[in-house]
Amino acid sequence: MDLISLFDYIGTFVFAISGALVAAEKRFDIFGALTIGFATAVGGGTLRDMMLGVQPVTWMLSLSYFYITIAGVMVTMLFQPIVLRMRNTLFLFDSIGIGVFTVIGIHKAQLFAIAPPLAVMMGMITAVAGGIIRDTLCGQVPLIFRKEIYATACISGGIVYYGLGYCRLPEAVNIWVAMLVIVSIRIWAVKFGVQLPLMPDVVKKEENTNQK
Amino acid sequence: MDLISLFDYIGTFVFAISGALVAAEKRFDIFGALTIGFATAVGGGTLRDMMLGVQPVTWMLSLSYFYITIAGVMVTMLFQPIVLRMRNTLFLFDSIGIGVFTVIGIHKAQLFAIAPPLAVMMGMITAVAGGIIRDTLCGQVPLIFRKEIYATACISGGIVYYGLGYCRLPEAVNIWVAMLVIVSIRIWAVKFGVQLPLMPDVVKKEENTNQK
Amino acid sequence: MDLISLFDYIGTFVFAISGALVAAEKRFDIFGALTIGFATAVGGGTLRDMMLGVQPVTWMLSLSYFYITIAGVMVTMLFQPIVLRMRNTLFLFDSIGIGVFTVIGIHKAQLFAIAPPLAVMMGMITAVAGGIIRDTLCGQVPLIFRKEIYATACISGGIVYYGLGYCRLPEAVNIWVAMLVIVSIRIWAVKFGVQLPLMPDVVKKEENTNQK
Repeated sequence: MDLISLFDYIGTFVFAISGALVAAEKRFDIFGALTIGFATAVGGGTLRDMMLGVQPVTWMLSLSYFYITIAGVMVTMLFQPIVLRMRNTLFLFDSIGIGVFTVIGIHKAQLFAIAPPLAVMMGMITAVAGGIIRDTLCGQVPLIFRKEIYATACISGGIVYYGLGYCRLPEAVNIWVAMLVIVSIRIWAVKFGVQLPLMPDVVKKEENTNQK
Repeated sequence: MDLISLFDYIGTFVFAISGALVAAEKRFDIFGALTIGFATAVGGGTLRDMMLGVQPVTWMLSLSYFYITIAGVMVTMLFQPIVLRMRNTLFLFDSIGIGVFTVIGIHKAQLFAIAPPLAVMMGMITAVAGGIIRDTLCGQVPLIFRKEIYATACISGGIVYYGLGYCRLPEAVNIWVAMLVIVSIRIWAVKFGVQLPLMPDVVKKEENTNQK
Repeated sequence: MDLISLFDYIGTFVFAISGALVAAEKRFDIFGALTIGFATAVGGGTLRDMMLGVQPVTWMLSLSYFYITIAGVMVTMLFQPIVLRMRNTLFLFDSIGIGVFTVIGIHKAQLFAIAPPLAVMMGMITAVAGGIIRDTLCGQVPLIFRKEIYATACISGGIVYYGLGYCRLPEAVNIWVAMLVIVSIRIWAVKFGVQLPLMPDVVKKEENTNQK
């Protein structure tokens, strides 16, 4: 098994844990936790595959993702205090996860001759859509719409990946540099609390106008 | 028309009613009720088909599901008091519905040579995803994540179905026993208030730790 | 570029603005606004294509929709006060948008030999599903389930389109009359506050019964 596959599996495992933790916060039962775990771990790739026309969706071609996701949820259920204490490690692997998912998503899109900006978008969707589905199913507005440089890291890495493609470097270099960019931006953003600018607030402005 | 098709149609009808009842609780208009009715009745099969690559999605190949769903919503709108008084009957047919939907979903997955555990998952998704979509569109966290043995019944029935497949019995026996298992577990669980264990509660534990 | 394509692009642009405005109300950041903008602008067509089996989904075949959506979100961010003052113009173009999206959706469905009632449904989904996804992702119950003649206008226009198909008129006449019907019904409904009848209220009735 190559390193990309290993990171892919680790990312799936960590995403499943992240889903199970939200399910635990919401006091879901085991089925609920498994559903949210699957939605988080394979939701992004599923949406990408359904949009591109890769069917059956990739993760259904082997049982690896199935068992890894179940393992992630079970570990969260049985060893929750340990999982919670490992938040820093989880954060690191989560960042590696979005890195590898972005690159894998771009590769899939390239097989369908999708234009580069849309391929980068497909890579980003692979990485972040699972979390959006998780939050929506749990009845909360996705945090990613409001805080943290997350999708932006994926998009930046994707652009770097395409840029390097013009430099005639070995493909492996492009992949690893892109992933490094994604992980670095994500860690840097969280460490320094960097955020994207918010949209100007319509409602407040309108209210202020009314009060005058 | 064979009995499986009949149960399929009855399940669709009862699922549409269940959607329309939630829409009525939320004071939606007729269009909202129809949308929720369709999401509930054909949502599970639609998601399964989009993941497997069955397109156009199965229910669009005939007008039966279309008219049955509209009928379910209309009946709910016009004869609501009667529908509400028939809750026990509806519950029985809803249970038969998830039974037949599970078996149909597994069959569809088998056509695509999907691994047995994933085929059972596809069967379960056929049966329960419509309700999850219904609840999410209506702005409530799906009840199924928190209470009742519902998806678990489908999974159990699916496993029994595969187990019987090794016993060289006639296919019809496998199908009917699997459906009977699903319906029985569901009725038994509701009658005795059986539930799956909940996930341990992260937030509370953390709060307690902080207070010490 | 023909007029239909022009209206298609204008509709996409206006839908992206409508998504960005909701994102601004919710105080999302730029990434959140872009995501909601895309969900609103291309969500309906994406769902239709995934159900029919048009893959990669139509809007990914060119970069036009990609750039138009980004432009819509950026305009909303930078010139929000102007955008807000143009609500009447936006409303008009939004109505033209649902008109053209409905006709395009019906055409797509016809390529797959879908039965007329389902083709009209696909047209309506093309026009309204984006807004439903937008509202759900933003944590609010879709307004369209409760108020305004919106989807009904699309369905009426779709039925007129099929009806005219039997009159052996030039195809262009069918298209333009159908769009005119959709835009007219929508404007008429908003101007006079016309709404669909609501579903009867289950909960209240039950409560009243209990109190007796």
